[in-house]
Amino acid sequence: MGGAKGTAAIVAGAARASLPTSSGDRQGIEIVLVGDERAIAECLSRERYNPERLSVLNAARDESVQEAVRLAADGRAAAVISAGPAAMTIAACQRYLEPLAGVRRPALGAVYPTAATHGRRSDPFTLLLDVGACPDADADDLVSFALLGAAYARAISQNEVPRVALLSASAEPSAAPAAAVAAAERLVTTAGLQYVGLIEAVDVPKGLADVVVTDGFAGNTVIKLLDGVREIVLGLASYAQKERLLWKIGLRMLSGALSRVKQLTDWEEYGGAPLLGYQTVILRTHAQSEGQAIHNACRLAAKAVAADVPKAFAELRGPAPLRAEHAAQSIPA
Amino acid sequence: MGGAKGTAAIVAGAARASLPTSSGDRQGIEIVLVGDERAIAECLSRERYNPERLSVLNAARDESVQEAVRLAADGRAAAVISAGPAAMTIAACQRYLEPLAGVRRPALGAVYPTAATHGRRSDPFTLLLDVGACPDADADDLVSFALLGAAYARAISQNEVPRVALLSASAEPSAAPAAAVAAAERLVTTAGLQYVGLIEAVDVPKGLADVVVTDGFAGNTVIKLLDGVREIVLGLASYAQKERLLWKIGLRMLSGALSRVKQLTDWEEYGGAPLLGYQTVILRTHAQSEGQAIHNACRLAAKAVAADVPKAFAELRGPAPLRAEHAAQSIPA
Repeated sequence: MGGAKGTAAIVAGAARASLPTSSGDRQGIEIVLVGDERAIAECLSRERYNPERLSVLNAARDESVQEAVRLAADGRAAAVISAGPAAMTIAACQRYLEPLAGVRRPALGAVYPTAATHGRRSDPFTLLLDVGACPDADADDLVSFALLGAAYARAISQNEVPRVALLSASAEPSAAPAAAVAAAERLVTTAGLQYVGLIEAVDVPKGLADVVVTDGFAGNTVIKLLDGVREIVLGLASYAQKERLLWKIGLRMLSGALSRVKQLTDWEEYGGAPLLGYQTVILRTHAQSEGQAIHNACRLAAKAVAADVPKAFAELRGPAPLRAEHAAQSIPA
Repeated sequence: MGGAKGTAAIVAGAARASLPTSSGDRQGIEIVLVGDERAIAECLSRERYNPERLSVLNAARDESVQEAVRLAADGRAAAVISAGPAAMTIAACQRYLEPLAGVRRPALGAVYPTAATHGRRSDPFTLLLDVGACPDADADDLVSFALLGAAYARAISQNEVPRVALLSASAEPSAAPAAAVAAAERLVTTAGLQYVGLIEAVDVPKGLADVVVTDGFAGNTVIKLLDGVREIVLGLASYAQKERLLWKIGLRMLSGALSRVKQLTDWEEYGGAPLLGYQTVILRTHAQSEGQAIHNACRLAAKAVAADVPKAFAELRGPAPLRAEHAAQSIPA
């Protein structure tokens, strides 16, 4: 019940996801819609869906996210999708779900579009985390965020050895918070990922890393600034030169261009941003998500369940196969 | 010796600042150029300057900032201006200068252009601090940054009760780092400034606050992202739609517009960014500073010395005159 586009958009996307695909190679996804039963029934009456795959669980408006997470806690759902406020989703997960072994604090990820593509699937985005679940993060948290992000990149983008960077004010360690410096030391010797160093926020869109790790305060600041680029540019530019006609024309074109950029920086096209650190797949979709975005989120959730991100995480934490290989190679023949 | 435009730009700006102004209401500023004696002499031979106001102190290239700070430590200079790397200036000050009473860690400020103007002088910028001197800041640090920033706004922008905000991921305290939440509680009851709450980075250019306070990691991330807006937009936009002609034209116009924005976000026009927390006025100018920017920095430095920022800081820390007034007003007549 959390999306800004109302129940209709969520129901439309879910209804479509419950249908088998036209190519016939895939069954519909099994979906439970959690929320106001009557409102959902009314929306469903206007949609085509697979009644064997779609059911409804009644919940008060304010409790829909919580009830959906409880379904997962009871083992009755493998994934939860929410278009509601991030804080509400995070709070419900903290209350009802156990973090994975080795995770003290789960992390909210954001997928950020980049010029370079990532992994065998050529996904055109970088995963940035944490972006708001954990405003204060110590070195242990940052290392576990790196492993969670790398596990997601491995499982979802089929990226065997994800490049991981830590966000910093510069490549110079003296400008980095103490937690990042300590985390960097440990990531250098972590197998299954390639630690590529400290990276500045302005370089995130270049796609120099597949996973960029930081604390929730800095991460949230970065995504909001990048998402708000249009607003910032228009504000500054109009302040800079109000009088010139050429500027006015340029700004009008710019505005259209930046609307497209804004759309790109939204998460819709990628199905959602994961909250990582639980056995359950948790996806947050944009509040403005339309039916298509919800449909994409359902497909991403099904894919994430099948890809088993927690298993990829456990492997990254386990004995280091890649380093063992290196060691073997260095033994003289 | 630290500027990217070479010794000539620095010498040209300083030479000009040593001359009396044409209106005759102000004498030239007394300046010591610290650096390679021969290189400076050669540049000076091409400039008009006041030899009674301008002298040279020989120093090796790598030691010029350090030697300039030592001049101040010895009481032979009231202000130091550097176009060199911020880290080097900060390190020299930490080594040779004593912080003011009540300041544990000095803060590097950045002046950021805003749509709204600030103070009686209608300065069109917000002071953001810390932006790199102190990557990790606790609540005590944030409160002292707020007082230092407010003192600067009072003394320089003639802004009697500066509006102070703390940077956060949202106006919601749960998204703020613990240090910011604790600092907020104390700033609410601080006299001589108006605490206006938690502010998001994307709102900094709106000018809702005169002083925005955060830790050095987040602050540096924000200014680098805002400075890098052009790069980010062009990168994303070209990635978004490479093929459309209209876009290409738009991007070309956009590029010019954003160059102007980039220029605006540079510190040159405002003379420099202060390193606050010392008796000595420390100004950092942009590495690309030309003569005009250095001249502006000299004037700003002289103004800051005259305005006595440390005194304004001591007043803010002292007994609270504004709150006392409020208390008096609330006594029934």
